[in-house]
Amino acid sequence: MDERITEHAETLVDWSARIEAGDDIVIDVAPGAHDLAVAVAAELGERGANLVTTYASDEIDRAYLRAHDDEFDADPAHERALYENADVVLSLGGGRNTSAMADVPGHIRTAYATAREGIREARMDTDWVSTVHPTRALAQQAGMSHEAYIDFVYDAVLRDWEALAEEMRGLKALLDDGSEVRIVGEGTDITMSIESRTAVNSTASVADDSHNLPSGEVFTAPHGTEGEITFDVPMTIRGRRVRDVRLTFNDGAVVDYDAAGNVDVVGELLDTDDGARRLGELGIGMNRGIDRPTDSILFDEKMHGTVHLALGRAYDACLPDGETGNDSAVHVDLITDMGEDSRLEIDGDVIQRSGLFRWEEGFRA
Amino acid sequence: MDERITEHAETLVDWSARIEAGDDIVIDVAPGAHDLAVAVAAELGERGANLVTTYASDEIDRAYLRAHDDEFDADPAHERALYENADVVLSLGGGRNTSAMADVPGHIRTAYATAREGIREARMDTDWVSTVHPTRALAQQAGMSHEAYIDFVYDAVLRDWEALAEEMRGLKALLDDGSEVRIVGEGTDITMSIESRTAVNSTASVADDSHNLPSGEVFTAPHGTEGEITFDVPMTIRGRRVRDVRLTFNDGAVVDYDAAGNVDVVGELLDTDDGARRLGELGIGMNRGIDRPTDSILFDEKMHGTVHLALGRAYDACLPDGETGNDSAVHVDLITDMGEDSRLEIDGDVIQRSGLFRWEEGFRA
Repeated sequence: MDERITEHAETLVDWSARIEAGDDIVIDVAPGAHDLAVAVAAELGERGANLVTTYASDEIDRAYLRAHDDEFDADPAHERALYENADVVLSLGGGRNTSAMADVPGHIRTAYATAREGIREARMDTDWVSTVHPTRALAQQAGMSHEAYIDFVYDAVLRDWEALAEEMRGLKALLDDGSEVRIVGEGTDITMSIESRTAVNSTASVADDSHNLPSGEVFTAPHGTEGEITFDVPMTIRGRRVRDVRLTFNDGAVVDYDAAGNVDVVGELLDTDDGARRLGELGIGMNRGIDRPTDSILFDEKMHGTVHLALGRAYDACLPDGETGNDSAVHVDLITDMGEDSRLEIDGDVIQRSGLFRWEEGFRA
Repeated sequence: MDERITEHAETLVDWSARIEAGDDIVIDVAPGAHDLAVAVAAELGERGANLVTTYASDEIDRAYLRAHDDEFDADPAHERALYENADVVLSLGGGRNTSAMADVPGHIRTAYATAREGIREARMDTDWVSTVHPTRALAQQAGMSHEAYIDFVYDAVLRDWEALAEEMRGLKALLDDGSEVRIVGEGTDITMSIESRTAVNSTASVADDSHNLPSGEVFTAPHGTEGEITFDVPMTIRGRRVRDVRLTFNDGAVVDYDAAGNVDVVGELLDTDDGARRLGELGIGMNRGIDRPTDSILFDEKMHGTVHLALGRAYDACLPDGETGNDSAVHVDLITDMGEDSRLEIDGDVIQRSGLFRWEEGFRA
């Protein structure tokens, strides 16, 4: 077995989930993630944690949902009880076909998700962490060979997380002290207020309330956005590929949009509700192991040298106590590459230029 | 997909587990049983039952147990809560290597099982059913090609269960009315009392308190066994092959034993405790779809034309109210083929001769 599978498991159990003896753990294993599950089980056994293994098969879900009508019992007791009594849920993704659910009607998915809101909350109340095992299906989604994709995933996951967390603390301090962010680049000149907002260090550890492995981004909740931005990193939104999405903001809301192909998807997204036309997140990617987009938001939004903005819901952690931020049924990240001649400013100070932070070697002020 | 997978799923859900809308179901899926799980999920969706899928991987269990010391937390809360809140547990067996757990030390397995007694009980308190999907590993265990084994499994599972249940009711009536059973064959002449004992129809349905699919046996709890018997169907006991086990009984207890190879396994078994030298079960196989032994007790003990006796623990259902039967830490079935010139008598009446019941065509009185 590739030694990196064991290192991945150790990182997940120790750095990300902080698991200790006696913790009640659920590992939720996609069919392609079997080898990672075996490695994680060994780590959990060694630490004296208690293990329940669930099976996250899209093919089983598809069969169940397609056969079901659109009326589901609310929060079935056995599943709710499992998560209410769990300390940690480790989601080990990596299916065998990323399109396995493509023919499940949307109204059934929505009804199922809605009926399970309590289970979702119980799961989110645990020290949950999501990660993926590098399967062939994910390699295909990324347009990469399996071997190259395996290297890519481990470069992203097996970081010096302590060192990165320290670097992120520096950026968080700048954002917390700042009032306005400006992003300038080709097809982009946009400003947004971050006044009275708190940045979150997404360090891939529940100790920092960060629940993805890999992670490596600092994010906050902007408001009052003005100007225009081009998202040049390709994305899949609602199953369809979009690229070069351009948004124009006035007084915090999108007033114009365009895209190179599938522009109607962007229109549908913006029409979801009022909050879908406003930003919920400004995120700054800091994971140097992620050197290219792979059509997976788990990786893409953390790519070093990129910035992403999310239309829709804001995270409470970024807001002053008692204040509610932008609310929406959606939260869709769009990513722009901070390449040559682009820059990120906080209150007029250039923090990043041409993809390099000002504390990095080669930065030009 | 083989249509028989869907028929298997329908039989499991409707005949065996009697699942209805709103039932909270756990399906526990071995890695090789994925296709059966997909078919079962579709049946559950159609009926409006609620589904949690757990993953029964021997490789995960092995990794966990080998890394763990031999002190386990008693009945972890999350797993206990899952089963305490479940109505039905469907165990879909069929691993990819029946020896996957071979190098897990016995004292760790025992400690793990002991610590989880409450979880086992919660699981047994549901309307649980165990079945298997015909994997290559099980075909190999049976010494059969995969194709032939698939046919074998579906012949055993896809029966006219109503008709078989009716036939079994007839045999149960004879056993309930009878006082003494005698089995005679090559190397076998044994009598046992069934006075005041109640036979159980194992019809593969929870409605009859029968939890295996396939099933097809009638069993009771004998006592006062006298004589000798040869078990000519080969068995694996504690991982070792035994055949032609010969037991001699006096006043209900084994006083002499022999076997063709691995005879020490039989000795170890008998030495477990006092109850291990006495019978807990007399079972009569009635499933005509099972035409050969396949080194799997789920199938072997139900083979039509065989009788099995279990050393060890008796089932309460066979005993008069308030009476405790033979007690032991073990329950090990041994099987004898009721071939040419063998016979089964109840109070001197021949019920079965040369493998044919007296209500079957070709029976010679």
